[in-house]
Amino acid sequence: MKIICSKTDLLNGVNIVSKAVPSKTTMTILECILIDASTDVIKFTSNDMELGIETIVKGNIAEKGIVAIDAKLFSDVVRKLPDNEVIIETDDKYITTITCEKAKFNLIGKSGEDFSYLPSIEKNEYISLSQFMLKEIITKTIFSISDNDTNKIMTGELFEIIENQLKVASLDGHRISIRKVELDKVYENKKIIIPGKTLNEISKILSGEADKLVKMYITDNHVVFDFDNTTVVSRLIEGEYFSINQMISPSYDTKITINKKEFISCIDRSTLLCKEGDKKPIIVTISDGILNLKINSVMGSMNEDIDIAKEGKDIAIGFNPKFLMDALRAIEDEQVDIYFVNPKAPCFIKNDKETYTYLVLPVNFNVVS
Amino acid sequence: MKIICSKTDLLNGVNIVSKAVPSKTTMTILECILIDASTDVIKFTSNDMELGIETIVKGNIAEKGIVAIDAKLFSDVVRKLPDNEVIIETDDKYITTITCEKAKFNLIGKSGEDFSYLPSIEKNEYISLSQFMLKEIITKTIFSISDNDTNKIMTGELFEIIENQLKVASLDGHRISIRKVELDKVYENKKIIIPGKTLNEISKILSGEADKLVKMYITDNHVVFDFDNTTVVSRLIEGEYFSINQMISPSYDTKITINKKEFISCIDRSTLLCKEGDKKPIIVTISDGILNLKINSVMGSMNEDIDIAKEGKDIAIGFNPKFLMDALRAIEDEQVDIYFVNPKAPCFIKNDKETYTYLVLPVNFNVVS
Repeated sequence: MKIICSKTDLLNGVNIVSKAVPSKTTMTILECILIDASTDVIKFTSNDMELGIETIVKGNIAEKGIVAIDAKLFSDVVRKLPDNEVIIETDDKYITTITCEKAKFNLIGKSGEDFSYLPSIEKNEYISLSQFMLKEIITKTIFSISDNDTNKIMTGELFEIIENQLKVASLDGHRISIRKVELDKVYENKKIIIPGKTLNEISKILSGEADKLVKMYITDNHVVFDFDNTTVVSRLIEGEYFSINQMISPSYDTKITINKKEFISCIDRSTLLCKEGDKKPIIVTISDGILNLKINSVMGSMNEDIDIAKEGKDIAIGFNPKFLMDALRAIEDEQVDIYFVNPKAPCFIKNDKETYTYLVLPVNFNVVS
Repeated sequence: MKIICSKTDLLNGVNIVSKAVPSKTTMTILECILIDASTDVIKFTSNDMELGIETIVKGNIAEKGIVAIDAKLFSDVVRKLPDNEVIIETDDKYITTITCEKAKFNLIGKSGEDFSYLPSIEKNEYISLSQFMLKEIITKTIFSISDNDTNKIMTGELFEIIENQLKVASLDGHRISIRKVELDKVYENKKIIIPGKTLNEISKILSGEADKLVKMYITDNHVVFDFDNTTVVSRLIEGEYFSINQMISPSYDTKITINKKEFISCIDRSTLLCKEGDKKPIIVTISDGILNLKINSVMGSMNEDIDIAKEGKDIAIGFNPKFLMDALRAIEDEQVDIYFVNPKAPCFIKNDKETYTYLVLPVNFNVVS
């Protein structure tokens, strides 16, 4: 095999497929990037058996062939090459020579025989949305998936298509994040659970441009994202997602409107008094026009008032500060509405159109403290 | 005590004195910053018993007093306060209230009684140099001190005053870094060893401006740096520094002139093939007009030519790539001169005026490999 690419294109391709190279695996061949120049395009592939990525790299093929090269080493070498044309050439023992200007590397490659190619998915119907939109809904919900494998479903996100709407939800037992976006047309209703890892990696690869599209193909066991010159194939998580609609109550006893930035800074300051692992709640007391936030810990105490607009009853309620912060930080609005029922029931941060809904469970606290 | 400062001034003061707060100590009082407003200025002090820092913080004293507050917590709190006027007030039990806008923290302070104040040093004669100069000579030599405590002297740097010249040197057994700068006048000859930690912290505090001065006071056991509103006092390392002049040979058999940036990139690429802890040398082969750099490791091999100007004999010599890189990166010139004697003798990277000299010991290598 002999191919010639620019360093930039090469690096771009390597960066994309590196996202699906497993860090630990018993199949060492999967620690490689497969360079396939056996047809008329140069294709890089990586696969961790749950998530697979394929991308086309611009360049010329002087001699057709296939080689698998250790992903980490290959990516380090490419990154440090001069910014110029790169020649990648293999001999019959898969010794791979990478030449750029006067620099010449010899790396030990492998035949691609044992490599697990991506499953071939029938590509018929697809859902189309902008890269920007997909990236946004992922980054603004992904923080509330669970990293605990005991409930596999919680490690993924619900992607639900209801006519011309895409609803994305994640939950970890303490909170729920929901985002809704409008699609370009009415699609067949569908409900899948996509692994959090897949979504995390995709959000890193997506350029996030509003005028570039992603095509999403859904099958019984897989989801495929097609964009730019890249194809991402991921297994789905099996099972039925939680009935989140039942967890969201439309009624409330207290509604406040608060400046998001002020509230975030205030919560952020309060976390100084929590040692890691220490589950001290912040206590939020709402009365007419004022939200008071206080915390008491072995390290000291803090107390701060924020001006708010309030409807309904007064309330005092405890929260894990991190959960409130994560939700607030994912919101783009300057003023946010928060709805409370009682000190034992979750609060909701949502806008009128409900394009976003964040539910946070309260924490018990001793009122006397 | 009650003082009023701007958040900016407070943060600046905290950042400066935090550099001398020990991370581990049996004397918990030393984990505090001492706020001394018992006179007509607000003074912050920290002391790890080897290095002590004192800085004056701008502000108003409404009520005189002293308090010691946990440095980490105090610095976190100050950092996260709104950007406004801050009031720090203590009661008779040293409970310290920090108020800024509507935020109010209560922290548990201590009396300053047990705090170790800085040793009082007689300030007579001083050496004057610019902050820029001091910062430069530290950062461009500090990387070759030893972090191994078995030879205490190697963990510090030689500061030698010879008439109107300041010479700074560090060595770790594999390499030597020497910088010389001209002082404003002739001073009494002096030779001291300053702990590396002190120099590291000072280089971080110095603003590095060319028109701001540092006064350096030297006593038998201490060195004091006075600049801006800050005083840094450090113990000296006892003992006689190595006779580095004897290690530097003026003669050479090969001299090359090489583009520094090209050489650094080339060495940098070669390090990709060394695993950490792996002591593979790079082999530099010098012939007319060309420097060839190569490395062979279990991961593969690399080979690259760089154009050079050469005087004297051809030579092949092995190096630890990190040591060459550190020296080259500390040099400001675009073209550097490197002097070689033979494959067993150190090479020297220096300029004609010898304002910098970097000596690097070679590494044995098997020529056949």
